[in-house]
Amino acid sequence: MADPLARLVSELARLPGIGPRTATRLSYHLLRVSTDQARRLAEAIVDVKEKLFHCSRCNAITALDPCAICSDPARDTTRLCVVEEPFNIQPLERTGEFHGRYHVLLGALSPQRGVGPGELAVDGLFSRLEGIAEVILATNPNVEGEATALYLARRLKGLVPRVTRLAFGMPVGGDIEFTDEVTLGRSLAGRRDL
Amino acid sequence: MADPLARLVSELARLPGIGPRTATRLSYHLLRVSTDQARRLAEAIVDVKEKLFHCSRCNAITALDPCAICSDPARDTTRLCVVEEPFNIQPLERTGEFHGRYHVLLGALSPQRGVGPGELAVDGLFSRLEGIAEVILATNPNVEGEATALYLARRLKGLVPRVTRLAFGMPVGGDIEFTDEVTLGRSLAGRRDL
Repeated sequence: MADPLARLVSELARLPGIGPRTATRLSYHLLRVSTDQARRLAEAIVDVKEKLFHCSRCNAITALDPCAICSDPARDTTRLCVVEEPFNIQPLERTGEFHGRYHVLLGALSPQRGVGPGELAVDGLFSRLEGIAEVILATNPNVEGEATALYLARRLKGLVPRVTRLAFGMPVGGDIEFTDEVTLGRSLAGRRDL
Repeated sequence: MADPLARLVSELARLPGIGPRTATRLSYHLLRVSTDQARRLAEAIVDVKEKLFHCSRCNAITALDPCAICSDPARDTTRLCVVEEPFNIQPLERTGEFHGRYHVLLGALSPQRGVGPGELAVDGLFSRLEGIAEVILATNPNVEGEATALYLARRLKGLVPRVTRLAFGMPVGGDIEFTDEVTLGRSLAGRRDL
């Protein structure tokens, strides 16, 4: 394989979820696109590294400090939604159900990987509690996310009027038959009156 | 989403097999890698566009003309393997079973998409037949690849001593139960004495 091509394949294969085969397919594709399109992709890659950083208030990814959500006067300033990573914000925004602000922990508690509260942006969260009526714990529905939510819930008790956790249950469009028993158990436990 | 990030997501989502979700995941990943790694990827993308071209003999992708295979004196100059695309060469090379040279058609015949022999690098193939003892037709095992192989076989008859086609049959490690009937039929028709 020609050197520059092999180099592109190996750089692409370093990305998560991209194996050598996909990297090869993408490389040959990039060979065929217009020089313009290739250049725009290359510039976009360099740009995210050069122009973006974490919002000093919520840790979201932003090109301006504070970020668009933190500086939006129309957002509900009494609700704070705690997430693990910056990329958790967008899916929550897309629901259109939340109008408050976010706080990104930049990780989740994980004794196994040696991530304690000191490694997370927890202090920043506690410095933002003034005027907050509800903290929604929107960490992931897995062991680490649950541990993080429980840890924060315990520490937040008494400091804010209300601490809530995202609901667990069957995904919409799912199927009882193919729902695992843990999820189905949570779905039963969290049942609501109709 | 911050502007440079949205731009990277949309550029990545233009690549084949990469939807908006994967593009988003990759973008956030690139945000986290070292500036060095991001720069290397960006440069590799620009490099393939600037430094690579088609070999003037076989149409493979190369940084030098003729390409490494065409200029390798150790290759068997009496065998020519015809493939559709430059990226078909590497998998064939990996088998270690072929030591001749290649000819890349840069496509396959497709009446539906309006690709006739004039759109393929067919003339180049016929100009390379001197001293060739065997042309192996290694176009894809689908309708277009088959049509291309049949077309070339007909035209090559009499011009070269031997014209062969890659074998069709069950993939190694496959399962008779899950092999489609067309493949299984070809596998039967191509059976060999043990």
